[in-house]
Amino acid sequence: MTKPSIPKGTRDFTPDEMSRRNYIFDTIRSVFRLYGFQQIETPAMENLSTLMGKYGEEGDKLLFRIQNSGEKAGEPAEKGLHYDLTVPFARFVVQNRDKIQFPFRRYQIQPVWRADRPQKGRYREFYQCDVDVIGTDSLLCEVELIQIVKEVFRRLGVRVALHINNRKLLAGIAQVIGQEDKLTDITVAIDKLDKMGWEKVVDELREKQLPESAINTLAQIQNIKTLDQIKLFLQNSEIGLKGVAELEEIFSTYNSLNPHATNPTVDFSLLLDLTLARGLNYYTGAIFEVKALDVEIGSITGGGRYDNLTGIFGLPGISGVGISFGADRIYDVLNQLNLYPKTSKDTIQLLFAHFGSAERQYCLAWANALRQNGINTEIYPDICKIKKQMNYADQKQIPFVAIVGETEMQNQVVMLKNMLTGEQKQLSLQQLIGVLKTTL
Amino acid sequence: MTKPSIPKGTRDFTPDEMSRRNYIFDTIRSVFRLYGFQQIETPAMENLSTLMGKYGEEGDKLLFRIQNSGEKAGEPAEKGLHYDLTVPFARFVVQNRDKIQFPFRRYQIQPVWRADRPQKGRYREFYQCDVDVIGTDSLLCEVELIQIVKEVFRRLGVRVALHINNRKLLAGIAQVIGQEDKLTDITVAIDKLDKMGWEKVVDELREKQLPESAINTLAQIQNIKTLDQIKLFLQNSEIGLKGVAELEEIFSTYNSLNPHATNPTVDFSLLLDLTLARGLNYYTGAIFEVKALDVEIGSITGGGRYDNLTGIFGLPGISGVGISFGADRIYDVLNQLNLYPKTSKDTIQLLFAHFGSAERQYCLAWANALRQNGINTEIYPDICKIKKQMNYADQKQIPFVAIVGETEMQNQVVMLKNMLTGEQKQLSLQQLIGVLKTTL
Repeated sequence: MTKPSIPKGTRDFTPDEMSRRNYIFDTIRSVFRLYGFQQIETPAMENLSTLMGKYGEEGDKLLFRIQNSGEKAGEPAEKGLHYDLTVPFARFVVQNRDKIQFPFRRYQIQPVWRADRPQKGRYREFYQCDVDVIGTDSLLCEVELIQIVKEVFRRLGVRVALHINNRKLLAGIAQVIGQEDKLTDITVAIDKLDKMGWEKVVDELREKQLPESAINTLAQIQNIKTLDQIKLFLQNSEIGLKGVAELEEIFSTYNSLNPHATNPTVDFSLLLDLTLARGLNYYTGAIFEVKALDVEIGSITGGGRYDNLTGIFGLPGISGVGISFGADRIYDVLNQLNLYPKTSKDTIQLLFAHFGSAERQYCLAWANALRQNGINTEIYPDICKIKKQMNYADQKQIPFVAIVGETEMQNQVVMLKNMLTGEQKQLSLQQLIGVLKTTL
Repeated sequence: MTKPSIPKGTRDFTPDEMSRRNYIFDTIRSVFRLYGFQQIETPAMENLSTLMGKYGEEGDKLLFRIQNSGEKAGEPAEKGLHYDLTVPFARFVVQNRDKIQFPFRRYQIQPVWRADRPQKGRYREFYQCDVDVIGTDSLLCEVELIQIVKEVFRRLGVRVALHINNRKLLAGIAQVIGQEDKLTDITVAIDKLDKMGWEKVVDELREKQLPESAINTLAQIQNIKTLDQIKLFLQNSEIGLKGVAELEEIFSTYNSLNPHATNPTVDFSLLLDLTLARGLNYYTGAIFEVKALDVEIGSITGGGRYDNLTGIFGLPGISGVGISFGADRIYDVLNQLNLYPKTSKDTIQLLFAHFGSAERQYCLAWANALRQNGINTEIYPDICKIKKQMNYADQKQIPFVAIVGETEMQNQVVMLKNMLTGEQKQLSLQQLIGVLKTTL
């Protein structure tokens, strides 16, 4: 006999948990739809050749590899579970380019898998909710993504700050300090400034053999807070100034729509964050990260622009931009703040309780009528004491119980009990439907 | 450079395909909810010890195994992708028994993975939509599952026959022919009667070394069509007669609710099918299979009662019953019959087309207002010829385009074009919202 357990870093979700999760998914999805995004899905497994080398060396190690089946079982794995939804999306776009229209706007909500060391807030299976536009370099897309972030968290009731930066600006910094070939090292190091402080960044840069003079020049970025200041720092870097110009356009378009955006008392703010770097190498323009203001959990949403992600699959020169909502972190945030609505689409509205098998049969016809009226209805399946049936309703938090005994059958009624107030009254079928439709 | 492809037996789904699939999932889910079922999810990967030995020898071979990560990489796999949702459900029930109420009613909609040889209508990754009640042996559950099947296919517009049998009755047959220890072989063989004919069944039974006398007695079942006939055949088998009694109760309860159920002209029929066996060994009572009447595709939904599925995980004596809708086969059926609604929740209702960047900026504020009114709206992101923007709308089958030039900006209107009729008219923002809310 097996004592039941599940692989570490994975989770079961009970009905209560699923109601909460579906509330998050439904909220995100409905905002995506309003902005004209449409859903796609890709397989859980991709060929390893699609996945390898896209997430850096560390990423390759975190891929879950699937053993070949049949005769090839002993040979090296050919397939792996996808690590994110962005690389599969790029592969999808190239492979299905004849079936889709560019600019292509898609959303995708699926689990991803990473063989990371499990810890608080980090799972081996978790959901991403991705939204991307590919086939245009219009900065309108960046602005729309910012609006989507704002609207999703407004609906969820979570106060957030959206940190924004630009990879071109980081490239400009590398240029200014004369270390263009070390861009990745610098990017990875700067990414840690926020979490670990400047000294750790210096340690890391020395390890990567950046000269002290370059590190000293770079130190200035700690004190740079505005676009005008960074513009000055980057005055001799063409790519850096292009990054600044992009950010200026994004801010000005966004601010024209949202005059109060910089007021720090509001629930959403768009913040320039020059220390934001993001680890993934494919970003080439704007980069985003969203932080909850009332819960310490790190980034709950992130993304950016990539100019050549489809190039690796044979379709170069196509720019795209996207963000990914980390549904599991958002779930943890909402759990901490207890921000869920009281009922969900899965809520059972009525339980029929009965005194015997003739009564149960009577309930069956009534339940059919309620269901035809869109009311989620359950009949207690066993013949047993009413008390047990009431307990069951109580524990499942079913708001109404319709009790049926001999008298109710004779009078063609049920005794409806409101489980919250304890109130009871006899109702005909039409009355019952009326009551349930108005109270729920 | 990698030429993009995906593992054989897996599929990408484009926005059009996802709209169709979501229509199926949403339909099934909403019926599940009406009957008081609530959603759970379990991880894609389970410990191999949970999965192995539950699906017969063939099933074990079809499990996708996941390589261990890190130091254990060379050792035998410890995890696999789930093969169905029933065994993970049984594991879930045992592991979470303190968090749930019995009888426990759950639905579960997730992909499953099988390393089967891919062929028409058979995939290596496909979705199951499962609904089960566990913790009661009430036959009311069987009747409710039949009603769910009927309602789902009524809503989808697919004519189906639900074939029903009972494993106890098959056990009775094995008893009557004196071959109780060969029950599994007999069950597996009878399962093929429908597809391959009696002679193949005989071949298979001979291979399993059933004596000729037993095979000759068994031959009678070809001519048995009614419950009364099988009752006679099983008169000396207690378990067989119990199976008959269960079927009688299911039929009588169902028929009392559905007086026209046996009328063959209706779109749904409940059929006694003594040749129905189903391959999986855990069934112990009623078994079901649903066949589409207008498409040849085999079973599109199936299930049954199991009396001890949780026993293997340490919680014996809990009876359950469930069915699984094969979403991918249903998808194939609906594709063949072309039974989809014209619009979906993902349908984009309006595209803004514009003559330049000032116009595009103007569209942004309008789009915001439409989105606040729940209208799925897209703005063409690039500055380019109107013709290109109209083509884009046309190819994406967006029903309305709002065109904005200098005149429209000056007059605070848009030119709305109905893409189906070609009709155009100037509208204010309030008028535009009104038109879109009524036509869509």
